[in-house]
Amino acid sequence: MTEHDSDGGSDADSGTDEDAETAADRVPVLLVRGDREYLVEPGAEMGTDLGVLEVPEDVQPGDTLETHLGDEFHVRRLRGPDLFHHFERTGAPMVPRDIGLVIGETGIARGDRVLDAGTGTGVLAASMARAGADVVTYEQDPDFADVARENMALGGVDDVVDVRTGDVCEELETLESSSFDVITLDTADAADVVAHAPELLVDGGFVAVYSPFIESTREVAETAREADLANVRTRETIQREMEFDDRGSRPSTAPVGHTGYLTFARNE
Amino acid sequence: MTEHDSDGGSDADSGTDEDAETAADRVPVLLVRGDREYLVEPGAEMGTDLGVLEVPEDVQPGDTLETHLGDEFHVRRLRGPDLFHHFERTGAPMVPRDIGLVIGETGIARGDRVLDAGTGTGVLAASMARAGADVVTYEQDPDFADVARENMALGGVDDVVDVRTGDVCEELETLESSSFDVITLDTADAADVVAHAPELLVDGGFVAVYSPFIESTREVAETAREADLANVRTRETIQREMEFDDRGSRPSTAPVGHTGYLTFARNE
Amino acid sequence: MTEHDSDGGSDADSGTDEDAETAADRVPVLLVRGDREYLVEPGAEMGTDLGVLEVPEDVQPGDTLETHLGDEFHVRRLRGPDLFHHFERTGAPMVPRDIGLVIGETGIARGDRVLDAGTGTGVLAASMARAGADVVTYEQDPDFADVARENMALGGVDDVVDVRTGDVCEELETLESSSFDVITLDTADAADVVAHAPELLVDGGFVAVYSPFIESTREVAETAREADLANVRTRETIQREMEFDDRGSRPSTAPVGHTGYLTFARNE
Amino acid sequence: MTEHDSDGGSDADSGTDEDAETAADRVPVLLVRGDREYLVEPGAEMGTDLGVLEVPEDVQPGDTLETHLGDEFHVRRLRGPDLFHHFERTGAPMVPRDIGLVIGETGIARGDRVLDAGTGTGVLAASMARAGADVVTYEQDPDFADVARENMALGGVDDVVDVRTGDVCEELETLESSSFDVITLDTADAADVVAHAPELLVDGGFVAVYSPFIESTREVAETAREADLANVRTRETIQREMEFDDRGSRPSTAPVGHTGYLTFARNE
Repeated sequence: MTEHDSDGGSDADSGTDEDAETAADRVPVLLVRGDREYLVEPGAEMGTDLGVLEVPEDVQPGDTLETHLGDEFHVRRLRGPDLFHHFERTGAPMVPRDIGLVIGETGIARGDRVLDAGTGTGVLAASMARAGADVVTYEQDPDFADVARENMALGGVDDVVDVRTGDVCEELETLESSSFDVITLDTADAADVVAHAPELLVDGGFVAVYSPFIESTREVAETAREADLANVRTRETIQREMEFDDRGSRPSTAPVGHTGYLTFARNE
Repeated sequence: MTEHDSDGGSDADSGTDEDAETAADRVPVLLVRGDREYLVEPGAEMGTDLGVLEVPEDVQPGDTLETHLGDEFHVRRLRGPDLFHHFERTGAPMVPRDIGLVIGETGIARGDRVLDAGTGTGVLAASMARAGADVVTYEQDPDFADVARENMALGGVDDVVDVRTGDVCEELETLESSSFDVITLDTADAADVVAHAPELLVDGGFVAVYSPFIESTREVAETAREADLANVRTRETIQREMEFDDRGSRPSTAPVGHTGYLTFARNE
Repeated sequence: MTEHDSDGGSDADSGTDEDAETAADRVPVLLVRGDREYLVEPGAEMGTDLGVLEVPEDVQPGDTLETHLGDEFHVRRLRGPDLFHHFERTGAPMVPRDIGLVIGETGIARGDRVLDAGTGTGVLAASMARAGADVVTYEQDPDFADVARENMALGGVDDVVDVRTGDVCEELETLESSSFDVITLDTADAADVVAHAPELLVDGGFVAVYSPFIESTREVAETAREADLANVRTRETIQREMEFDDRGSRPSTAPVGHTGYLTFARNE
Repeated sequence: MTEHDSDGGSDADSGTDEDAETAADRVPVLLVRGDREYLVEPGAEMGTDLGVLEVPEDVQPGDTLETHLGDEFHVRRLRGPDLFHHFERTGAPMVPRDIGLVIGETGIARGDRVLDAGTGTGVLAASMARAGADVVTYEQDPDFADVARENMALGGVDDVVDVRTGDVCEELETLESSSFDVITLDTADAADVVAHAPELLVDGGFVAVYSPFIESTREVAETAREADLANVRTRETIQREMEFDDRGSRPSTAPVGHTGYLTFARNE
């Protein structure tokens, strides 16, 4: 394989049959000019302060589009960190750092079936979907759920993310046992779901819980142990930007703050 | 989509055509019994201290296999963190935490074309491939490269990871310009590659560099700025396990140590 | 003042007048030879594996003593960090780092009157005394209190540290109001004492509490706020050794672990 | 000893002879009313927006003074952390945290003779003096040195802190060998002084260096090792405020930033 035939590589997951092709065509792209950045679907018409942009159905990353006033915009593929800026927010979205930690510690990959609760803005669900996972995600607030569905379309993953309105705790019996590879939770009552993780997860599956406060984090960790989940661990992450200037190198005097504790456990 | 048809979901990436099926069949699975854990290919014969295991061509996660002595092993899908334990090591592999941070900050996803240098054990390359990326990775040591190729087969990603023996710095002109979405580097001379990142990366692509020491980290960050890459930032990550017992909650008295600095930059 | 007459400065404790002389004579000194290190009182006789050391009444730091077998030992003044190694332990003593943070944040200095509870090994009490404070410290365990008294003598501060056997909570009414400049607590029921800090402390006085667990730390901070103490703050300290070698500079991969949370508040 | 006769205790270091008494009388006190806070010498007259305050020669902490307009101010002893607010600044003063770490790791105590360089605002020098040390401190900038001298008077330690105008590196030969118990440095050329620490320090003495950047920190640590100083270690300190509210407990999302690296070594 070389980078020349990498399309073949992406075929492997976007699929070669009509459906997938069409799906691929529907994937929104970024139109960028300096600080201006728009996330639009192929075939759409986009009004900007620099004039109207007609986006071809067959638009491709790398193309250049012109507004009817002749201003150029460059076409880009959407990347995970872009979701953070382009998704409509219904709350503070999980930051790329924590999304990465969840993906890295649970090994989210092609073919995973993920149960997610506390959809919120949906950045985590969309990021896992972009990494190849099928995601079922629950959001209690109907309005938030609607926004999340729009965000999934914006992220080009509405075909693999099923945003359900409701409380996952009340839906547990409707979920097939051993039907998920990973469970990701960002809700106040995460512990109630963790208690059922052994039934919901396949053998070897992971549960990952994000919780900002130590009390709820402790409850989650204790529940995971009581449920006989293996390798239960809670990690706190502190990050600091490094500053490099003529005077020398040092950690920033304005470090990155606390976001949340991440608790991981495995079904064994 | 529901979890009932989530097989269909995984079809989307394992593919429905013959090729993919065959590919899927070749994906190694984990055979687990208590502390015993073997990573084997479908169709293989595995000798264990509990007897011989015949692994059917059509073995599926969730199946139970018996050795000829009657001892049961459970079949599991391989997950990212398992690579860390099952790959043959040619050096200290990148830990799941840092792999996650690289994936999260660069948004590794389906269809990405990644240039990786300093393959080493290959856990990062395999993890990105499992998240849907096509990876071209360079390893200078021929023996290490051979081990990495075996590891890619073990990880079921040898079809999407191209392990090349050689020094990427000497191969740069052979690489098509704007042909990579992300560049990941874990080499002593990472800065030399970073200087060429603007040509190699697509518009909006990311470069991520892992470097254990501050001096090389600084060189990388300065080179990224000189190359006019955008949003250049170096992050140091400190993690601590939290301990919860009858006495109370506190960070572990034996925290997780320093691994490396991560520098990210974007081509804009 | 110059370093030539700095003896005048050290007069404050080595003293020139009769009183001080006597006090000075009682201050133990360190006898050091390679890895051998003994803390002994002037006038004492010390048996070592290298022979007997006769310590003159007028021994001075900088002197050299010989055992009866002719092996030389150098005489040193005792320093704070030495207490950590020479005090008999009745539990894990507070580390120099935390002792320093308590002294720095409360401004322990000459003439301070300190109420300390949870004497333990007594390193904090002795360190504050060495910085010029008069300390009243409570230890519930009679045996621990006896060891602490011996340690105060070893530290040359038995004249300014009053080790009392008992539970400070039951002695509060026997303590004169507004008679302490600083209160330092390292006990499970620290919050009960914090509630009375406003009566016990002078205007502008500080309370400092060391607590290893978050639950008791929270109780202390909440009690301090309910007691209308000012500038209540809890700090968690993470320290890492830096490693410098031929390959470069980086934080140690084996960082310094969590010790305890420090909560400070002021009486205003 | 009890808290009742603790005056006797403070005599031990403030001294009982006339001189000391007078010195004690000259120690400035804090006059506090709500947010108003003045640091004044006994016998001084202080004009405030609430009228003039006449400060008696024999003013004592705990007294209440009235302005000629009848507004009350409470009299307090000055404490270390107050220096941070009341000293005139010629640069960013060292924070109480780092002052405490220096005092704790070197064991600053009564009778210590300290060589300090890079006086700056003088908070460290004053804090060590308040803990009983005689300090000789060098400041290259004549104006800064003048301000530092005024600050020492404000801190009531001008009798034990000798602020010298000049570059300590050029004065090293004028300093008596083995005449210091501790050397504290906060200068760009700290390494040059560290190289001479073995001659300047008594046996068992400490050197402590504060340096904000890693490059200069490394130079200091390497010089200390080349000079055969013992137990050379560099520590980086990260502190975070803890937040306790109705939702739960967590580290602050706005942590305390990096100040400087602290390198310690001992003369053995």
